[in-house]
Amino acid sequence: MSITLGELAARLDAQLHGSAELRVERVAGLDRAGAGDLSFLCDPAYRRFLKITAATAVIVSAADVADCPVATLAVRNPYLAYARATAMLHPLPAVAAGVHPSAWVSPDARVAASARVGPKAVVEAGASLGEAVDIGAGCFVGAGAFIGDYSRLGPNVTVWHGVRIGRRCILYSGAVIGADGFGLARDADRWVRVPQIGGVQLGDDVEIGANSTVDRGALGDTLIEDGVKIDNLVQIGHNCRIGAHTAIAGCVGISGSAKIGRRCMIGGGTGINGHIEIADDVQITGMSMITKSISQRGSYSGGWPARDSRYWRRLVARVHRLAGGRAGRDND
Amino acid sequence: MSITLGELAARLDAQLHGSAELRVERVAGLDRAGAGDLSFLCDPAYRRFLKITAATAVIVSAADVADCPVATLAVRNPYLAYARATAMLHPLPAVAAGVHPSAWVSPDARVAASARVGPKAVVEAGASLGEAVDIGAGCFVGAGAFIGDYSRLGPNVTVWHGVRIGRRCILYSGAVIGADGFGLARDADRWVRVPQIGGVQLGDDVEIGANSTVDRGALGDTLIEDGVKIDNLVQIGHNCRIGAHTAIAGCVGISGSAKIGRRCMIGGGTGINGHIEIADDVQITGMSMITKSISQRGSYSGGWPARDSRYWRRLVARVHRLAGGRAGRDND
Amino acid sequence: MSITLGELAARLDAQLHGSAELRVERVAGLDRAGAGDLSFLCDPAYRRFLKITAATAVIVSAADVADCPVATLAVRNPYLAYARATAMLHPLPAVAAGVHPSAWVSPDARVAASARVGPKAVVEAGASLGEAVDIGAGCFVGAGAFIGDYSRLGPNVTVWHGVRIGRRCILYSGAVIGADGFGLARDADRWVRVPQIGGVQLGDDVEIGANSTVDRGALGDTLIEDGVKIDNLVQIGHNCRIGAHTAIAGCVGISGSAKIGRRCMIGGGTGINGHIEIADDVQITGMSMITKSISQRGSYSGGWPARDSRYWRRLVARVHRLAGGRAGRDND
Repeated sequence: MSITLGELAARLDAQLHGSAELRVERVAGLDRAGAGDLSFLCDPAYRRFLKITAATAVIVSAADVADCPVATLAVRNPYLAYARATAMLHPLPAVAAGVHPSAWVSPDARVAASARVGPKAVVEAGASLGEAVDIGAGCFVGAGAFIGDYSRLGPNVTVWHGVRIGRRCILYSGAVIGADGFGLARDADRWVRVPQIGGVQLGDDVEIGANSTVDRGALGDTLIEDGVKIDNLVQIGHNCRIGAHTAIAGCVGISGSAKIGRRCMIGGGTGINGHIEIADDVQITGMSMITKSISQRGSYSGGWPARDSRYWRRLVARVHRLAGGRAGRDND
Repeated sequence: MSITLGELAARLDAQLHGSAELRVERVAGLDRAGAGDLSFLCDPAYRRFLKITAATAVIVSAADVADCPVATLAVRNPYLAYARATAMLHPLPAVAAGVHPSAWVSPDARVAASARVGPKAVVEAGASLGEAVDIGAGCFVGAGAFIGDYSRLGPNVTVWHGVRIGRRCILYSGAVIGADGFGLARDADRWVRVPQIGGVQLGDDVEIGANSTVDRGALGDTLIEDGVKIDNLVQIGHNCRIGAHTAIAGCVGISGSAKIGRRCMIGGGTGINGHIEIADDVQITGMSMITKSISQRGSYSGGWPARDSRYWRRLVARVHRLAGGRAGRDND
Repeated sequence: MSITLGELAARLDAQLHGSAELRVERVAGLDRAGAGDLSFLCDPAYRRFLKITAATAVIVSAADVADCPVATLAVRNPYLAYARATAMLHPLPAVAAGVHPSAWVSPDARVAASARVGPKAVVEAGASLGEAVDIGAGCFVGAGAFIGDYSRLGPNVTVWHGVRIGRRCILYSGAVIGADGFGLARDADRWVRVPQIGGVQLGDDVEIGANSTVDRGALGDTLIEDGVKIDNLVQIGHNCRIGAHTAIAGCVGISGSAKIGRRCMIGGGTGINGHIEIADDVQITGMSMITKSISQRGSYSGGWPARDSRYWRRLVARVHRLAGGRAGRDND
């Protein structure tokens, strides 16, 4: 893949300083780039490399143009332009249509001619794979599941029966969509399982990270709206609704029936109680515990930054003394 | 599946208000139910739908009977009755006995005639699958593992060699039972692996959520007693013992050799130190850090509910000033 | 497997008290050991079993020799000696070379004659498996991936394209190495995916626990240096560098581009921000939140040990009153 700076400038809506005929072939960091490389400056920590870069061209903010010894593409949002340029220069490989001979596809499944089913994958009866869908090696697509056009499942993804996945979604390895929710009714001193008869719906352009889990609904569906991006090792409980274009970082757990707004950003390691509602445009910093609904947009936090351990132990003890008074007993 | 209210009342030990001849076919929420649907009222937030429900019948507490315009089944614990009624109306599909031609089963494995082995599953030598056991697509059942009658493994579950699983257990996709525990001995500036030669035993009626992990013991076995219910993305370290009928919510981590009592409830995101003991009937709220043994039943907490970020940062700084004094240095 | 105490003493550099001709066949705990068993005393809690043990021999510190009724092997570090002796008596089974007929291996992959590829595993074109490499059932090894000599992948491990794994590594079930990092650029009210064109490199002697994930780099590689040991359900973000011989306990999340030093120990449930640096020899206790770089070796903490819930709620309220003043509003 190679592209001229002229075409790149046009496609990125960038102001080009340099020759439109120059070509770039790949993307590389400022400090490592050489001839044929396109680089970028987003993080101020890398500014020191700008003056010495050997890249053919660099994506920058207008303010940085003068400092750059090579061709520049000036844009308002260099990180976004870098993302787009990288997608142009390093496109996902085309889907190699066809069912691998080692896969098992039910004769009652519907597989578009342009779709691929990888080695050792399993597609059950009634499942439907749209145009250019890519089912990785070892995946399981359950009975009646629906995978929309251009969606891609990495190797070893599990999609349970009846799950509906929109278009252009990406699911990474180990993701499990549509396993039963954690529904238990107490019966004296034991638990009775509550059958989970709902489903899961993913909108378009959803991404689910490696080893993340989205449970099916107890009644009704768990809903992941368009454009939601979920990192690795995230748990989404049954009957949650995650609003469009919300991003959820790694190791987050969201309990059942929580409703998260649109365009929220949820920091890594955060836990969110069940049955609460979070407004649109809420940001939650990492490792926060959200126990109540949040009705106002804004930023919320609950984590304690770590300190030297001896100091920390003393702090904890003093807080108990100051604030706890006589009741400050230990837990055992 | 359809059932008369008369039979339902008998099986749920419910007081029926309405015609015993009416039939219900499925379960639905109060606000969505129509003719042929059985609904229920457990959560007070749904009471507003009771008067306008179009369900054929509703499971309620005795106190709510008068407010319901349709037939009612009055019980002491509506949620439990709902769970049971759902299991009657939406039973798990019967296990379609037989080994799928695309599975690989060692000739030295023992597979009950009533068991199923799904597509692409692997069952190693010496493994034993009991009556009506269901091994999902892509599962791995290691050498000498034992799966008790009526247990079900969803697709892509991994059971290592020698693991013993009781009867009527359910393991969800991505669960890994019996991988080596995290045992390391320090040798100057490097780690030496401690071989993990113990095993794992799961009692009867245990459920393990998607992508949860239960490590095998270093010496002796990791024990998950009868009726324990474990949600998704939970880690159980080597040589833990989880007491019967304890429920563990998502994203919990329990370090090696911890002993958890019976009928405990452990909230999501909680971390429990190794080598400690927790009494029976202990409840731990979400995101708590349990560093010491707990000898008294009761409820324990350690999480800080999130607040507005600006307020939170100020709070943290003031706590350091108030309680930390001069020692309040930062971590760097 | 059986070994004389004489040979064991020589190989462990231990002082033998007892007959060098005695043989031991397996390792067992002090309280359960019998004839032919080798036991050990590391944890003082087990000292009470020393005097009554029926083991054939016990690994102890010199100070405990006199208290032991049976043969002893006295060493400076009994836990390390126990680890080594266990590895001698319970060696990993030899790798049964060969590609299982139910596996799918690309004709363009390179598989050493001494390597094993288990049932239903998939090895893509250009992948390379070194001497005595063991690929478990159901694994996926992507195009161009490299697995060094003597490395072992448990069942159902996923290694994406181009990942490089060193020698003698162990990857446990459900581990996902080289899925795309979580890179997103904001475009007005939606997210644009940043293609992840870097890779992952694991050094020698690395262990990755069950269901842990190591993302590939955005540009450049994610690096896990020699001897790093990672427990279950750990997330390592793109472009992290984990220094040699660092140990990371379960449920830890490390955000992208964090650099962790050598010989660090990171307690379970800890979260580490992206783009920070942590010095060598840092210890972090469990459930800490690391938001800034740490430049000094030492121990760091940030978790609040749990207490009785009623006391805890009062404590939290009082801290807000004491330190928060008027600003102490709730989050909703």
